[in-house]
Amino acid sequence: MADNLTSRKQDYSQWYNDLVLKGGLAEHSDVRGCMVIKPYGFALWENMRDVLDKMFKETGHQNAYFPLFIPKSYLSKEASHVEGFAKECAVVTHYRLKNDPNGGGVIVDPEAKLEEELIVRPTSETIIWSTYKGWIQSYRDLPILVNQWANVVRWEMRTRLFLRTAEFLWQEGHTAHATKEEAIAETVQMLDVYAQFAEEYMALPVIKGVKTANERFAGAEDTYCIEALMQDGKALQAGTSHFLGQNFAKAFDVKFADKNNNIEYVWATSWGVSTRLIGALIMAHSDDEGLVMPPRIAPLQVVIVPIYNKDAEARQKIDDKAAQLVKELRAKGIRVKFDNDDTTRPGWKFAEYELRGVPVRIALGARDLENNVAEVARRDEKTKTSTSLDGLTDYVSNLLEEIQQNMYNKALTFRNESITKVDSWEEFVSTLDGKGGFVAAHWDGTAETEDKIKEMTKATIRCIPLNNEQEAGKCVLTGNPSTQRVLFARAY
Amino acid sequence: MADNLTSRKQDYSQWYNDLVLKGGLAEHSDVRGCMVIKPYGFALWENMRDVLDKMFKETGHQNAYFPLFIPKSYLSKEASHVEGFAKECAVVTHYRLKNDPNGGGVIVDPEAKLEEELIVRPTSETIIWSTYKGWIQSYRDLPILVNQWANVVRWEMRTRLFLRTAEFLWQEGHTAHATKEEAIAETVQMLDVYAQFAEEYMALPVIKGVKTANERFAGAEDTYCIEALMQDGKALQAGTSHFLGQNFAKAFDVKFADKNNNIEYVWATSWGVSTRLIGALIMAHSDDEGLVMPPRIAPLQVVIVPIYNKDAEARQKIDDKAAQLVKELRAKGIRVKFDNDDTTRPGWKFAEYELRGVPVRIALGARDLENNVAEVARRDEKTKTSTSLDGLTDYVSNLLEEIQQNMYNKALTFRNESITKVDSWEEFVSTLDGKGGFVAAHWDGTAETEDKIKEMTKATIRCIPLNNEQEAGKCVLTGNPSTQRVLFARAY
Repeated sequence: MADNLTSRKQDYSQWYNDLVLKGGLAEHSDVRGCMVIKPYGFALWENMRDVLDKMFKETGHQNAYFPLFIPKSYLSKEASHVEGFAKECAVVTHYRLKNDPNGGGVIVDPEAKLEEELIVRPTSETIIWSTYKGWIQSYRDLPILVNQWANVVRWEMRTRLFLRTAEFLWQEGHTAHATKEEAIAETVQMLDVYAQFAEEYMALPVIKGVKTANERFAGAEDTYCIEALMQDGKALQAGTSHFLGQNFAKAFDVKFADKNNNIEYVWATSWGVSTRLIGALIMAHSDDEGLVMPPRIAPLQVVIVPIYNKDAEARQKIDDKAAQLVKELRAKGIRVKFDNDDTTRPGWKFAEYELRGVPVRIALGARDLENNVAEVARRDEKTKTSTSLDGLTDYVSNLLEEIQQNMYNKALTFRNESITKVDSWEEFVSTLDGKGGFVAAHWDGTAETEDKIKEMTKATIRCIPLNNEQEAGKCVLTGNPSTQRVLFARAY
Repeated sequence: MADNLTSRKQDYSQWYNDLVLKGGLAEHSDVRGCMVIKPYGFALWENMRDVLDKMFKETGHQNAYFPLFIPKSYLSKEASHVEGFAKECAVVTHYRLKNDPNGGGVIVDPEAKLEEELIVRPTSETIIWSTYKGWIQSYRDLPILVNQWANVVRWEMRTRLFLRTAEFLWQEGHTAHATKEEAIAETVQMLDVYAQFAEEYMALPVIKGVKTANERFAGAEDTYCIEALMQDGKALQAGTSHFLGQNFAKAFDVKFADKNNNIEYVWATSWGVSTRLIGALIMAHSDDEGLVMPPRIAPLQVVIVPIYNKDAEARQKIDDKAAQLVKELRAKGIRVKFDNDDTTRPGWKFAEYELRGVPVRIALGARDLENNVAEVARRDEKTKTSTSLDGLTDYVSNLLEEIQQNMYNKALTFRNESITKVDSWEEFVSTLDGKGGFVAAHWDGTAETEDKIKEMTKATIRCIPLNNEQEAGKCVLTGNPSTQRVLFARAY
């Protein structure tokens, strides 16, 4: 089975593409850089979105919707913001097509040129803060705790499905606060929400930290992040939460009267995760047989495959038993499918659901029923057990939780073993070129050194972990004094 | 209260705008034609979306996501399709900005011009059918039952919040079938889903029908629709379901091998409803005091307003009772808020929740508690009753259903009284200019007559109702023979 998949060892990058395409998650579209998210991939995104949305609402946020387009001049209002996004903007310049007078279909109507070009949003700080100006007069209007689920576009020449595409889906929270302290607390709170989501639902251990100035979001005072580790030893930024200070409030002149009637600029945060998380999910857990889905967000948690023989009566018994199991599992809120499609054989189905990463497979044959058992296979460990039909739904329900926990533990062990403390440049380079992973090293705190290291090794500072231990040391490249280790890695 | 709202009689159009803006549903953005959907409006849309999404899934559909952009040449592949949409296309021509060498911010980088311009999707038939070509080889791949929730852009010069905006949110179902019969059955099934949603959730009676050739979707063989009536006597198309024949399959060369290995073109449908439904909801139910929300989709179903006096002990008792009620109502799945904000007075709150259309308001004062009652007000009829606190949650739960039913019945009575059979041109014109509503009249079946009537009266044929009675008659304009009445109206 699955012998048409590339293995991780053979070609990690091709293995990833195989899983996305053959696993039915997504494919490239005819539009350069844009992907089609297929039903199975979108069902995964829906599950992730629903959990996150609930967590946002439980922390007091509401959803809203802001325009897809941003006037070009708005982008320029915050200097470092436009610097960060100008090179990847899709620009709308016209609003009408017309018939080509020379025949040959339609052409852009030159008379329908916009006075000011519109940018397809790469992120929405500017359009949202221009809107908040109308919403905020006094401290009574604060805080504003708003989130948006949306598509955004950042033009990319080299794209990879989920990891880097011109258009992607995401959520972007944009909050407004009366004080700096409150805004920072919000930034940290949302980072915690992301970390909790990654660990409890995606079974993905993450390191919480702060970005260096080089890696900060364009327009932020501080960017907090969660960093995850992929099986090839490369890091992946899985979510960011930005403390924006008063930068956007100043750019869009958003002030409020405080309780003492002093007029102040408003404090801001923004935070987002995207369909990129699906890429992280795949690369953290999957194996050479295909995807491995964490049960809590798996589109399908259990599949029941009948093993028919030629006996019609036996077949009926299997169907009846399967129907009963489906009913019982659904009553427990478990997403289950009975695949009784006659056009494919059980072996083909086994491989197919392995490829798709369905956490639990139940096979039901005539002999099994006679013995009052079913064969239960778990995807994470690829083990099978013959399990009594009595109490099978409880067994499966517990097994799903066990798989979730096991996936997390495996990923955590791997991640922890992939953090290497190094104190010399030789070790630094050999670790990166060898086992990879996070390299905890001293750094002199300058952007120049950071740039030089990136140039020499392709490794970047993924983050300065929160609650980092203070420790005197010498920068791994320059030997200049340092007070703490930071985490370097090559990254997606 | 609400004396700052325009009344319907004064200026219906201004009344509508007032409700959208002051009711906190949406506002115009700085981007021409694009709206900001505010949290209260978006919560309404979320409720509508969640119900519809469930109905789609129960009828076997899955969600997916297709690119925002469509290559210009794709749009042209189906001749009538491009004809219908060319004049309202937002066109992306460049993919990068750069610093203005003359200073003054950023300009579009002329060197970053796309080889082929991209259209921001006005609807997705073309990009989806170009994708389906890769998904469909044999009858085993059919049917494909896919839906997408997305933003679309149709450039508009004159816009109205929710009713007509350049960007709007919608869902678009796109299905592929092996036979014509199956595709037509799907088209009709989804029309029924829309009608059921409108009637059971929006409390909006609709007429199911078929569009004339003039009013058909660009690229469809037949457009089915649901038509609703607004309080000013104008009709509003609330949803459409299109039988697309083999038009898009031919345009994108999508064929399949049937069971006998004959190669055939695939049959298609598409169907959609949009944030326009929110406009319909407002205009069908609201009154001069503000919005009136149908309970089943109201963002907030019940608000509890405390009437405090200066007695701290009494205040505590009110707060305790309110907390208990909130808990009990939430346990029944009811969306409830206790508004104990001290900065506004009860009278202001009453007006505010009336404006926002919250179906049920509970006022709790010290005297009420002593008498073991609460004052329960219903928004639809603007009546108040003193109700025992014993069993109040059951009472409120039933009241919400009663309000839902009452709103539907009122709208149905109004709609039924607004269908006028006319047999002469004089009656036709005087009905349109007088009471408005639907005019059931004979029509000779020609596009010329339809165009002429539209030009003379601004009335269009809203639909030929399904299961229409056959009746011999004479066209109301030309006197030519006709076999059935059709429904004319002025429309949004």
